[in-house]
Amino acid sequence: SDITCVADYEALAKDYIDTPVYEYIAGGSGNEQSLRANIEAFQSVQLVNRLLVDCSAGTTATQLLGQSFRHPVLLAPVAYQKLVHPLGELETARAAEALDTCMVTSTLSSCTLEEIAQAHQGNRWFQLYFQVDRAHTLDLVRRAEAAGYSALMVTLDASIQASNRRAKRAGFQFPTAVRPENLQRYQPPQQVTLSTDQSVIFQGAMAEAPGWSDLEWLLANTSLPVLVKGVLHPNDAKQLAAMGVSGVVVSNHGGRALDGVPSAVHVLPQIRAALGKDVTVLADGGVRSGYDVFKLLALGADAVMVGRPLLYGLAVAGALGVAHILRMLRDELEVCMALTGCPTLQEIDRQCLWHSEQETNQHAHRD
Amino acid sequence: SDITCVADYEALAKDYIDTPVYEYIAGGSGNEQSLRANIEAFQSVQLVNRLLVDCSAGTTATQLLGQSFRHPVLLAPVAYQKLVHPLGELETARAAEALDTCMVTSTLSSCTLEEIAQAHQGNRWFQLYFQVDRAHTLDLVRRAEAAGYSALMVTLDASIQASNRRAKRAGFQFPTAVRPENLQRYQPPQQVTLSTDQSVIFQGAMAEAPGWSDLEWLLANTSLPVLVKGVLHPNDAKQLAAMGVSGVVVSNHGGRALDGVPSAVHVLPQIRAALGKDVTVLADGGVRSGYDVFKLLALGADAVMVGRPLLYGLAVAGALGVAHILRMLRDELEVCMALTGCPTLQEIDRQCLWHSEQETNQHAHRD
Amino acid sequence: SDITCVADYEALAKDYIDTPVYEYIAGGSGNEQSLRANIEAFQSVQLVNRLLVDCSAGTTATQLLGQSFRHPVLLAPVAYQKLVHPLGELETARAAEALDTCMVTSTLSSCTLEEIAQAHQGNRWFQLYFQVDRAHTLDLVRRAEAAGYSALMVTLDASIQASNRRAKRAGFQFPTAVRPENLQRYQPPQQVTLSTDQSVIFQGAMAEAPGWSDLEWLLANTSLPVLVKGVLHPNDAKQLAAMGVSGVVVSNHGGRALDGVPSAVHVLPQIRAALGKDVTVLADGGVRSGYDVFKLLALGADAVMVGRPLLYGLAVAGALGVAHILRMLRDELEVCMALTGCPTLQEIDRQCLWHSEQETNQHAHRD
Amino acid sequence: SDITCVADYEALAKDYIDTPVYEYIAGGSGNEQSLRANIEAFQSVQLVNRLLVDCSAGTTATQLLGQSFRHPVLLAPVAYQKLVHPLGELETARAAEALDTCMVTSTLSSCTLEEIAQAHQGNRWFQLYFQVDRAHTLDLVRRAEAAGYSALMVTLDASIQASNRRAKRAGFQFPTAVRPENLQRYQPPQQVTLSTDQSVIFQGAMAEAPGWSDLEWLLANTSLPVLVKGVLHPNDAKQLAAMGVSGVVVSNHGGRALDGVPSAVHVLPQIRAALGKDVTVLADGGVRSGYDVFKLLALGADAVMVGRPLLYGLAVAGALGVAHILRMLRDELEVCMALTGCPTLQEIDRQCLWHSEQETNQHAHRD
Ligand SMILES: Cc1cc2nc3c(=O)[nH]c(=O)nc-3n(C[C@H](O)[C@H](O)[C@H](O)COP(=O)(O)O)c2cc1C
Ligand SMILES: Cc1cc2nc3c(=O)[nH]c(=O)nc-3n(C[C@H](O)[C@H](O)[C@H](O)COP(=O)(O)O)c2cc1C
Ligand SMILES: Cc1cc2nc3c(=O)[nH]c(=O)nc-3n(C[C@H](O)[C@H](O)[C@H](O)COP(=O)(O)O)c2cc1C
Ligand SMILES: Cc1cc2nc3c(=O)[nH]c(=O)nc-3n(C[C@H](O)[C@H](O)[C@H](O)COP(=O)(O)O)c2cc1C
Repeated sequence: SDITCVADYEALAKDYIDTPVYEYIAGGSGNEQSLRANIEAFQSVQLVNRLLVDCSAGTTATQLLGQSFRHPVLLAPVAYQKLVHPLGELETARAAEALDTCMVTSTLSSCTLEEIAQAHQGNRWFQLYFQVDRAHTLDLVRRAEAAGYSALMVTLDASIQASNRRAKRAGFQFPTAVRPENLQRYQPPQQVTLSTDQSVIFQGAMAEAPGWSDLEWLLANTSLPVLVKGVLHPNDAKQLAAMGVSGVVVSNHGGRALDGVPSAVHVLPQIRAALGKDVTVLADGGVRSGYDVFKLLALGADAVMVGRPLLYGLAVAGALGVAHILRMLRDELEVCMALTGCPTLQEIDRQCLWHSEQETNQHAHRD
Repeated sequence: SDITCVADYEALAKDYIDTPVYEYIAGGSGNEQSLRANIEAFQSVQLVNRLLVDCSAGTTATQLLGQSFRHPVLLAPVAYQKLVHPLGELETARAAEALDTCMVTSTLSSCTLEEIAQAHQGNRWFQLYFQVDRAHTLDLVRRAEAAGYSALMVTLDASIQASNRRAKRAGFQFPTAVRPENLQRYQPPQQVTLSTDQSVIFQGAMAEAPGWSDLEWLLANTSLPVLVKGVLHPNDAKQLAAMGVSGVVVSNHGGRALDGVPSAVHVLPQIRAALGKDVTVLADGGVRSGYDVFKLLALGADAVMVGRPLLYGLAVAGALGVAHILRMLRDELEVCMALTGCPTLQEIDRQCLWHSEQETNQHAHRD
Repeated sequence: SDITCVADYEALAKDYIDTPVYEYIAGGSGNEQSLRANIEAFQSVQLVNRLLVDCSAGTTATQLLGQSFRHPVLLAPVAYQKLVHPLGELETARAAEALDTCMVTSTLSSCTLEEIAQAHQGNRWFQLYFQVDRAHTLDLVRRAEAAGYSALMVTLDASIQASNRRAKRAGFQFPTAVRPENLQRYQPPQQVTLSTDQSVIFQGAMAEAPGWSDLEWLLANTSLPVLVKGVLHPNDAKQLAAMGVSGVVVSNHGGRALDGVPSAVHVLPQIRAALGKDVTVLADGGVRSGYDVFKLLALGADAVMVGRPLLYGLAVAGALGVAHILRMLRDELEVCMALTGCPTLQEIDRQCLWHSEQETNQHAHRD
Repeated sequence: SDITCVADYEALAKDYIDTPVYEYIAGGSGNEQSLRANIEAFQSVQLVNRLLVDCSAGTTATQLLGQSFRHPVLLAPVAYQKLVHPLGELETARAAEALDTCMVTSTLSSCTLEEIAQAHQGNRWFQLYFQVDRAHTLDLVRRAEAAGYSALMVTLDASIQASNRRAKRAGFQFPTAVRPENLQRYQPPQQVTLSTDQSVIFQGAMAEAPGWSDLEWLLANTSLPVLVKGVLHPNDAKQLAAMGVSGVVVSNHGGRALDGVPSAVHVLPQIRAALGKDVTVLADGGVRSGYDVFKLLALGADAVMVGRPLLYGLAVAGALGVAHILRMLRDELEVCMALTGCPTLQEIDRQCLWHSEQETNQHAHRD
């Protein structure tokens, strides 16, 4: 009852999660410049209230990719949820079901995508990591289709695992019981031996990383709508849209991929401007309140995802914790909508923000 | 005798107020972005002193709504003052009387508006919250008129009570003895039952919130001048003025309504520009010194209100504390006027401020 | 030997000065916004080094008001120096003498101006506060002339003593032994009784404050060059120059007069632009190193004064401490000159600073 | 194994180095404004990731001055390395050899340049300080040529040793065993006696400082390519290039020369713009990760040097520590290249950075 907001779960979670695991989750890559930026960026955005607007018919309902959503907040793909709860993704799925929320299941989930689908009848999307072997990738896609996932979210910003210094310092190691269950049935790729001249990054990881042709192949081989996650550059956004991608997720992977990149708050306006109105744009990173959700919507997102908060809720109180977090985010979002005079999501735009001249410029330009 | 400024009362007040009550008063909504902004914004405004100006005929006297005021500092409407002093608003009223200061009585006062009027012969205004039942609203207006209140300040930024996390965490609950005394005689509105599809915010609170027609109705039903409190958007300000409202209060409710909105310091110039010279503009939020009062006047306010400081003075030393606070604010204001070469309030304008180019822009534009 | 810079004296001084006195000296007015700005402003200015410039004929010698100075650093007028050392201003004078430095004696010195003059044969200036009785003012001027002071620095930014909250909280009171020795021979002005309608500020202090005519009278009654101290507004600067004042001191009185005004760093460029090259411009406030001295010179000052540092040196080690501080400032200034390739003060200008576009604007405009 | 980045070595190094020595190394000149700026500046630069770029042929190989380098990270010239390890520069040289890295040997090395050359067959450059006696300077050059050093880096920003306050406070003194071994064979210059009128800075140190003619003489007397270290002003850069210098090092000497100058991050774009593409530009100061390396390359540097990090690695683990640091920098750089879609150094440019309008301006202008 002393839990009043998502931040309270974050604080409490430290008592429920082993320190090395907590550091692995909470930490970011490099110097954590992006991780900090994700949180701070929201403080630089200001709202304006409006008076006397009739909001009695207000609703947060919306359409994404032709699918109906009750709220514009989704559960981000988060790997290995058994790290914080013995039932892992199944509990999260139950919370999603209860709160009528779309859950995005990670390729690296610690329950199989089929198990998760059974626990959650509502909107469910599948997050896809390209596998080294195309056959494996295709099999994952077919399984997701079969299990009723209604969209693929292809994550492309993490070809290389940038080091999480906090986790390393805390001695984090994966418990053997927590595995990528979806991948157990596939033969692991053969280890390539590098000569001393060669780089583990360029000739190692990047040699197996997907390219534009892989994405084209994927688009040709599934009827599901495809979103690409990890987009920060307007040119990438435009090229993806031109290829036939249905949407993009403006994301820096919660500060866990390339450190030093800006947060969604800062690049969203440029991405939305580059794509126009017809492409679906999601955003994530540092969302900790309904105020933050509102700000991303106002800056151009159609919907928003939360990552770490779901783990904190899951760790503290299982499905109930995740549901509580979703509930608080939604209530706060509705307060923002009511007080800014936006009865529906369609009314939420840049006009709801207060900008000094200076910040206006900041959002407007890229060199 | 070691009390030298309002901040000293704030620090002392912690010893005089139970922690949960203190947190309820000191806290703001959401992440307290606006609460912090209210204090910090004043630091970004700079004054310029002027030399050798004759201020021997100086005075802080002014006219607001055709009424004479000795000082441009008013006591903001603050609900439930018995939370910090057994005599509540009556003590505040005595201080207002002693210091010849206008007190704005809240609809939610813990003494009746009639009792307060008796304790304070000077300028007194009534802050009105629209009641669900128009008859109740009208009765409040008639009672205020009868008790000699000379203006109505209609607060419109708080249709929904945004959660005060600090108060919740500290376990704050209203003591049964502290009640909205003005409303005891009215039947409480019937509880509406919501279906699970419906939102407590949109179909609950907002269904009962006032609209433009309610304000029109009010203007038609009272001869008192009406000010609207909680204005931050220039368009709202203009529309209100066009409807016949006599003045606006630029306020974010002390950071207690929609979190994330800018402070009066930042929006005042735009509001004043939108309204021109003839509409009365008050401002509040974070005023803690006569320097702050001066800055708001220079940015376009005709007068200024203080909220929490009156509660701190009241808690520490009753009427004497409130009077002392008013005295310090007034003395500091006079020092500012003397040293900036402004013998009267009319001389206080943007010319008294020092702006870097950058800040100038910041004040000039809204997107 | 562990003293390496002025800041070290400041830290040490706390052990040598009673806390209430220390707070009185270190503190500023109001919320200490200007006091903090004075220190922080220097961090926002950046220098650029230059390579291979011949500085072997370098010198800090300069001319001010037709008088020769070995260094462009002066000892600011600081009242009541016996607060920190039993011999007060006499020790400071001996340091000034030893380091060939100009000392500005305060009207409120705790030794007489005649005693001080005897201890210091070099350049000495007298800081004048207008007295309520013109005869007293004139007598002070005549005494300064007779004692060989070669300029008058009239301080005009302190008609009202703004409250020093830190001093008040610490219970600071003047020891009876520390008196304004220069004024002992004059009858104190009659106390004016104010009616309750009247303000101690406007009808009290400001009724006795000097006006433009008083300054005109002074200029007509002395042959000494007159500088005005406390100038921050370009229009005041221009009007003073037009009246025949020889120079101005850009100063916020060390953050002790009107709180909230900008620091010399920020207004100097505007003042210099308003006055052109022919009027002498000094600056003070927050100077704690030779780097700070260099920055003020580069922004347009002809010379610079230090206030609190002299008290810290005096408290810790008497004349020796003051001399050491002057020595360090001068050495650091010479290092700056050598490394920026400025063999003489004439070369020090805005070209020696590195500005981002943004800061350039900040210096360029006033609203 | 809990070492995950350069900062970890910095923290550990405090346990391996005597405090006075540590302070001497870690400290900067003056108020350490530049020292802090060096670290903070990198936080203000933001990268942008790019998706799906083929980096499987990626490499960090590059050419500088016609010489081949495997990585664009060099070991900066750092004097007296025996301060932190009994074998001093020899250990550093072994690490450079192992990691195929160019080491720049200081004139003030605590092993002779000949010894160092023997320990390191790869690319090696010699950092030259002009000696008071030209014959000594020439002898140093001849010895460097003879020992196979393939470039001279002439440091010109340190004609005067600005005081390192931290070192002074900690009582740092050179151990007698740590000497400038290269200079032992030369007669020390005669001490000049200064009159009391004269300045130890102008008539002392600066009288012996090199001028433009000395640099011309040097260029005429060596066939090695010459780089000048310590360049911050675009005009100096242009004049040096016009004289025939092959490259410049944009550096503020790690915040140890003139305090208050900007960091390489801030001036690099101007220097590169002044010089065009054909002059080699290196940069250093505050580089603590491969992310920092990448940012300097993107802002215009051809290669980057690290100073203090090598001392921390050397102190903690000798050659192994230095090698580990070089390895981490290189791996992080490769991660940045891969995730920004830059398979080679040629692709790294301003397009890889994300700039707000505001910061763009900041980089674009100098007054
Ligand atoms: C522990 C953890 C695991 C994650 N696993 C995945 C994943 O498997 N796939 C993916 O696309 N993103 C993954 N993400 C990133 C999230 O989808 C999301 O972008 C990010 O968490 C949003 O930032 P937030 O945590 O501040 O809300 C993970 C994030 C965390 C913290
Ligand atoms: C405890 C508390 C109760 C308040 N009650 C009311 C109220 O009943 N009606 C109203 O219009 N504003 C109310 N306010 C807002 C004040 O009128 C005012 O806008 C605000 O306190 C100004 O900010 P400050 O507290 O920083 O001075 C209240 C504020 C506080 C702190
Ligand atoms: C304790 C104290 C006493 C002062 N007395 C005087 C004074 O009598 N006359 C005057 O013009 N300025 C006076 N000043 C202001 C100084 O002349 C000077 O403007 C200021 O100290 C400069 O700032 P700094 O202390 O940061 O160097 C005083 C300042 C201090 C700290
Ligand atoms: C202890 C120490 C000694 C140095 N000695 C020299 C030197 O002898 N010659 C030189 O040109 N630079 C010298 N430098 C400066 C470095 O070459 C380099 O510019 C600087 O250390 C880069 O900043 P960083 O330490 O933040 O990486 C020295 C720096 C340090 C910290």
